Amino acid sequence: MDVQEIKVFAPATIANVSCGFDVMGCCLDSVGDIMVLKRRSEKGIVISKIHGETLPMEPEKNVAGVAIMALLDALNEQPDFGFDIEIDKRIKPGSGIGSSAASAAGAVFAANELLNRPFTNHELIPFAAEGERAACGAPIADNVAPALLGGFTLVKETEPIKVIELPSIDGLYATIIHPQIEIKTSLSRDILPDHVSLKKAIHQWANVGSLVHALHTNDHELFADSLKDYIVEPHRSKLIPEFDNVIKASVDAGALGGGISGSGPSIFTFSKSEQIADNVKLAIEKIYKNTSIPFHVYTSRINELGVKIIHKK
Amino acid sequence: MDVQEIKVFAPATIANVSCGFDVMGCCLDSVGDIMVLKRRSEKGIVISKIHGETLPMEPEKNVAGVAIMALLDALNEQPDFGFDIEIDKRIKPGSGIGSSAASAAGAVFAANELLNRPFTNHELIPFAAEGERAACGAPIADNVAPALLGGFTLVKETEPIKVIELPSIDGLYATIIHPQIEIKTSLSRDILPDHVSLKKAIHQWANVGSLVHALHTNDHELFADSLKDYIVEPHRSKLIPEFDNVIKASVDAGALGGGISGSGPSIFTFSKSEQIADNVKLAIEKIYKNTSIPFHVYTSRINELGVKIIHKK
Repeated sequence: MDVQEIKVFAPATIANVSCGFDVMGCCLDSVGDIMVLKRRSEKGIVISKIHGETLPMEPEKNVAGVAIMALLDALNEQPDFGFDIEIDKRIKPGSGIGSSAASAAGAVFAANELLNRPFTNHELIPFAAEGERAACGAPIADNVAPALLGGFTLVKETEPIKVIELPSIDGLYATIIHPQIEIKTSLSRDILPDHVSLKKAIHQWANVGSLVHALHTNDHELFADSLKDYIVEPHRSKLIPEFDNVIKASVDAGALGGGISGSGPSIFTFSKSEQIADNVKLAIEKIYKNTSIPFHVYTSRINELGVKIIHKK
Repeated sequence: MDVQEIKVFAPATIANVSCGFDVMGCCLDSVGDIMVLKRRSEKGIVISKIHGETLPMEPEKNVAGVAIMALLDALNEQPDFGFDIEIDKRIKPGSGIGSSAASAAGAVFAANELLNRPFTNHELIPFAAEGERAACGAPIADNVAPALLGGFTLVKETEPIKVIELPSIDGLYATIIHPQIEIKTSLSRDILPDHVSLKKAIHQWANVGSLVHALHTNDHELFADSLKDYIVEPHRSKLIPEFDNVIKASVDAGALGGGISGSGPSIFTFSKSEQIADNVKLAIEKIYKNTSIPFHVYTSRINELGVKIIHKK
């Protein structure tokens, strides 16, 4: 029987992962959107409901719609049905944990199921990245790749997109704080220099190499020691209140390290157990409660699967 | 019985390995110096013989002497004997395949054996790097690390030195051409910019990450695809005659890829079998025979051990 309706969990993601600016990402488990896709008898894409956020209902302006259009464009034969999309948007846009990527990844994953899986999850990445283009102007893959593949990923090439699935380290949990401030995307981009010192770049790629090695060898200490960003964090962290204090308090509470999630303002930290991640949560909350800034703090284990099917019929 | 005399093979090495500028290196097997270290009844270091090249005989000016001095400085108790060093220098200084590193690594390895191994090979790296300081002004580790540890290495940190041992890819052979031209070290440094484009740096660290992943997963194709240097090669390759032609002919002959060995002028290529490496050798020789430049071409498998004991008594 063909699938008529599917409900999926579309996960939030941490892009960059400190040293891996623009190339690395990892997938979260307890933070994400819920999406329902149904076959419609009429062709075309309809976004029938968006709960939680005010986002474009026109498919050609909505990342989920754009991503599915890219998928349909790649099919040799068009389906004889259309798609109805409902989105329960639980990841705040602009939070830095892959809100648009979750919608794009969830949409193409679910549509692919309704189409009886013409594509592998790897093959879905460029379609989801086209969704990202609708949100941020470029078909970036560093959030959609971990959202679709789970675990840790490395975007090796962008034209065309080539993604590597990296192994995860055992028992890893993330604690993430989303301070509810708005950082304009244009500002967080413009604050980065076009050119960087060769010396710092060398240090950065040494850490990318050692981070990948740490994931392969399950080496928590080396993993922690590799979570350093000499290039981007010194610029962008200035835009995030209490950044240094949050990292310091997290490490003092047992975290392995952390950094800016995506382009911020969310801050992520990693811990080697759920209990430590919970202690880190308390330490971070304590800092932000002393500010007037509203915030959310999440803990999540690393999601090894990516988008998950909640049910289908 | 204490070791009285030891003869070692001190291997040549390829530093940088394309994308891993200043951090990666690998160890060769069929190219290297031969060193003999003997206990002397009198304390102190004597370099009694250097065959093959004209190099300083004063221990405080010779990388082997300086490296052993650094080792001795780190001992709590000084030995009641001295060291006599003979060097059969088979790696040409200035060739770009770790000539000074071989002397430094071989010296500290052999001295450590005469001292009944107070240090692990990892611990010998900083002493050998001090030897490098005598040759090139800085205690660099990207050649001495693979010379001492074998296989592929990544220098994660330089102050203090921290080196990661990476796995090797099965059956890998290197073909190396050393065009006998002199490139002044100062020129090969000065030709590099202080700052590099962030975009290229991102591409470079994506390749460092994927190269490390390829070594862990024994993925020849990804390994080949990661051997790209967007930062240094475009500048330094101008100093090496026929560089582009050598790489192209090597790949046409079946090589996985290649680049500049260290700061050149040697060019390295990797192949996935000895037979392909030999074909690559022929292809490279053909190109250089059409020039007036004298050259040597070597093929070597990757040396997984580093410095090797030939005999001891």
